[in-house]
Amino acid sequence: MNIQQVQDSFFKLRSNRVFEFFVVGVIIFSALVIGAKTYDIPDYMLTLISWLDSGITLFFLVEITIRFIGEPNKKAFFKNPWNIFDTLIVVVSLIPIQDSEMALIGRLIRIFRVLRMVSIVPELRLLLNSLLKALPQLGYVILLMFIIFYIYAAIGASFFAAINEDLWGDISIAMLTLFRVMTFEDWTDVMYETMAVYPLSWMFYLTFIFLTTFAFLNMVIGIVVNVMENEHAQEEKERAIAEGDLTIEDLSKQIEELKQMIKDQKS
Amino acid sequence: MNIQQVQDSFFKLRSNRVFEFFVVGVIIFSALVIGAKTYDIPDYMLTLISWLDSGITLFFLVEITIRFIGEPNKKAFFKNPWNIFDTLIVVVSLIPIQDSEMALIGRLIRIFRVLRMVSIVPELRLLLNSLLKALPQLGYVILLMFIIFYIYAAIGASFFAAINEDLWGDISIAMLTLFRVMTFEDWTDVMYETMAVYPLSWMFYLTFIFLTTFAFLNMVIGIVVNVMENEHAQEEKERAIAEGDLTIEDLSKQIEELKQMIKDQKS
Amino acid sequence: MNIQQVQDSFFKLRSNRVFEFFVVGVIIFSALVIGAKTYDIPDYMLTLISWLDSGITLFFLVEITIRFIGEPNKKAFFKNPWNIFDTLIVVVSLIPIQDSEMALIGRLIRIFRVLRMVSIVPELRLLLNSLLKALPQLGYVILLMFIIFYIYAAIGASFFAAINEDLWGDISIAMLTLFRVMTFEDWTDVMYETMAVYPLSWMFYLTFIFLTTFAFLNMVIGIVVNVMENEHAQEEKERAIAEGDLTIEDLSKQIEELKQMIKDQKS
Amino acid sequence: MNIQQVQDSFFKLRSNRVFEFFVVGVIIFSALVIGAKTYDIPDYMLTLISWLDSGITLFFLVEITIRFIGEPNKKAFFKNPWNIFDTLIVVVSLIPIQDSEMALIGRLIRIFRVLRMVSIVPELRLLLNSLLKALPQLGYVILLMFIIFYIYAAIGASFFAAINEDLWGDISIAMLTLFRVMTFEDWTDVMYETMAVYPLSWMFYLTFIFLTTFAFLNMVIGIVVNVMENEHAQEEKERAIAEGDLTIEDLSKQIEELKQMIKDQKS
Repeated sequence: MNIQQVQDSFFKLRSNRVFEFFVVGVIIFSALVIGAKTYDIPDYMLTLISWLDSGITLFFLVEITIRFIGEPNKKAFFKNPWNIFDTLIVVVSLIPIQDSEMALIGRLIRIFRVLRMVSIVPELRLLLNSLLKALPQLGYVILLMFIIFYIYAAIGASFFAAINEDLWGDISIAMLTLFRVMTFEDWTDVMYETMAVYPLSWMFYLTFIFLTTFAFLNMVIGIVVNVMENEHAQEEKERAIAEGDLTIEDLSKQIEELKQMIKDQKS
Repeated sequence: MNIQQVQDSFFKLRSNRVFEFFVVGVIIFSALVIGAKTYDIPDYMLTLISWLDSGITLFFLVEITIRFIGEPNKKAFFKNPWNIFDTLIVVVSLIPIQDSEMALIGRLIRIFRVLRMVSIVPELRLLLNSLLKALPQLGYVILLMFIIFYIYAAIGASFFAAINEDLWGDISIAMLTLFRVMTFEDWTDVMYETMAVYPLSWMFYLTFIFLTTFAFLNMVIGIVVNVMENEHAQEEKERAIAEGDLTIEDLSKQIEELKQMIKDQKS
Repeated sequence: MNIQQVQDSFFKLRSNRVFEFFVVGVIIFSALVIGAKTYDIPDYMLTLISWLDSGITLFFLVEITIRFIGEPNKKAFFKNPWNIFDTLIVVVSLIPIQDSEMALIGRLIRIFRVLRMVSIVPELRLLLNSLLKALPQLGYVILLMFIIFYIYAAIGASFFAAINEDLWGDISIAMLTLFRVMTFEDWTDVMYETMAVYPLSWMFYLTFIFLTTFAFLNMVIGIVVNVMENEHAQEEKERAIAEGDLTIEDLSKQIEELKQMIKDQKS
Repeated sequence: MNIQQVQDSFFKLRSNRVFEFFVVGVIIFSALVIGAKTYDIPDYMLTLISWLDSGITLFFLVEITIRFIGEPNKKAFFKNPWNIFDTLIVVVSLIPIQDSEMALIGRLIRIFRVLRMVSIVPELRLLLNSLLKALPQLGYVILLMFIIFYIYAAIGASFFAAINEDLWGDISIAMLTLFRVMTFEDWTDVMYETMAVYPLSWMFYLTFIFLTTFAFLNMVIGIVVNVMENEHAQEEKERAIAEGDLTIEDLSKQIEELKQMIKDQKS
């Protein structure tokens, strides 16, 4: 049995729905059990989960090793970001968690171990991919929101700092307060306080809420629908090519052939 | 009158808009009246509602019986999940509710009785169907959300457990606290508490809120629009076939015929 | 000058952007000023607003009278629901508001007077029309939400009634509490209370929130996009017909003519 | 080196991704640092930031001057609103901020300085453009919301003014309270208060929440998708023309040529 066959059988096992559900189940269960110390779970159960969890890490280790050996061009292997991601997770998962010392590193390792789910579920990779595609556009939305927040924070800090130093003391604090207002979290308390001094300050809050809610919704929906439509158009194009759909261009060629036939006939 | 005719007349009655509204009205009214003991409703009214309610159950029983008898292939009858659903609801509705004993079973029966609405309103079946279609994709969204929550909960539990044991004691509790933050429910109280110790912890909350809100909106809108576009394309295709719309393929055939005609002319 | 010309000049004035803005401004201003007694507005200003407001009502009265006279078929006039709407508003606006007695009727008249805006702004009629179109589908969404609420309320009332009679006393009260949970309004207080007795009751709230938020978003987005796509397709079709766009059907006819020409040539 | 070359090299520098990120970074940093007086930032750092900030203003000044000189038609320069916007920002940025006196003007200048980001990031201009395009339609949505709010406020003020003068005293206050209810901010407190007097007043709140949430979502999504589809269709059309895609019109012309050829053949 050569390396290719081993790799194929590993790939088959990995793509198996039942195996996938089993691995995801063990990872979630072990993540929750190790995280929560308060559950009354019998010791043998904990030991079993711990063994299964180690088994999965071992499976991933063997699988990625064979994938690496099977790759003819070793450099190309690390050009695929998902391969780097998988390797990183396997390597970090191999570090033993010792809760007694270096608690912070233990936590980081725990986080990495949960990411093994992304290695096993292909749909999660798709979701992450579509999220990453929308990220650059989202950056500009955040920049625009920053400008809106800054403008309102500068106004708020100028007028309301004397009323409540904790909420409007300087521009940074005012921006945090405005974020709170944007999430509607006890925002009326903030408003009633300033309305006692400036009765028309409700206009400040209402315009801010309308602007941010509308701008945010507008742009998020815009980004999502845009990314989706592009993907859709891409898929449609590929399908049309694959299935050999006739296009207007094909018709045009047929008519040109007709013309040629008539010309030939003439001469 | 044979079984088919009886079935047809039952189907006609069932599809009747007025009958549908009447049945839905009685079901809702009886559900609310039986549930709420505090309303001052005259006794004869309660008796009337109770009789109407029983009448509807009887109607459903007779209707499904006739539908079952009318089905030539008895096995095929139970292959349609809606038939199983309807039968189950009728059977459970026949169990009398006795509030005095076995309160829990009484409640479950009550729940089942309200589902009779799904049997009578075809639009509800359509809605449920489209929800069920979106469910598998939603599962992956929940998995991704779980990973985001777990990562933030691990970080939160590491740093904030010493500040408030009730909110950040272990990873499970921290995840519940983060869900609370995601719904904006008094999240500033949680934040101000940790900011007193770690002044930069607002970054933890803000990135979490941005990430979950955006990821959630992104994926829900994505799923909905996707499911809808597929349904739309399906409908459009069926309509085009039904109405005999001309396609590019049809044109291509016509031109081919032309070519053949010219060829015939030549020879 | 005949009736048609008068009607046309009224229609022109009504469609004038500046006039529209002026009327909307006066209506809003008079609605707010009359409603709020606490503003310090000089008396002559109030008198002016009151006169302008009466003037607008008079304008509407004259305009609808002329529109009615200009209509050759008096019955057809009342078949257009917007005509009935406009007439009703003008008639009710003519009733004088006397705040001292019959406060309730005074309020109702005030409400009606604000609806004059819908008469003057055509875009508001379009918005209302598209809302009304989505209404029947929305009815089924509310029915489905009712079923979800009822199921959770029945479970909640069974288990939590002993914990807090005010929130979970009977099914009606439980449904109101669940609506509160759905809007995230202090829902953690409700949850922490029941978690003290049933530690796993967070599952009840989390599944409920996921289900209702997702079902609601799913269906609202679905309805909106559906209504919009239909309108879009309708507009596109009308535009294509108006501009005489060539269709595949037209091409097919042209090719048929070609065939005929070749046949003629043959014979 | 003539003016055109200088302008081109400035444009190249401005469009450079690294330069863009550097400028945006300095603007954000200086905005936050100057705004927040509480951060412990070493003095030399503050001086550096201040110098970089002045350098960017100088760069913008030189750049817009050269752009103005390079424009053959000086009047056309000020017909482009973005040129006016850029000039205004540069001019205002040149006013020195003196925090000691005229605090209000200092704040306004600070706001203007942050808008320099819009000058340097082209994607922000696109976002602002698409927001501005949706604005007129949004105006009508706000008008419709005003009518809904006014109707409910008139009802609320009539019935609940006696219960809580602070929340329902007159129509203006009632409208603010209703906005609070719409954002779900402690709305149950408002409701429970009136339910103590009018047990059925939950219907007032529930219908209001359903109506405003649905109407708002409906219209925002409608506007966004509409604006986007128009832009998409526009882009698609331009792309088709640019790439010389064949249309049904082109096919029709080809067939007409064919007909002509057959006619010529005949004669």
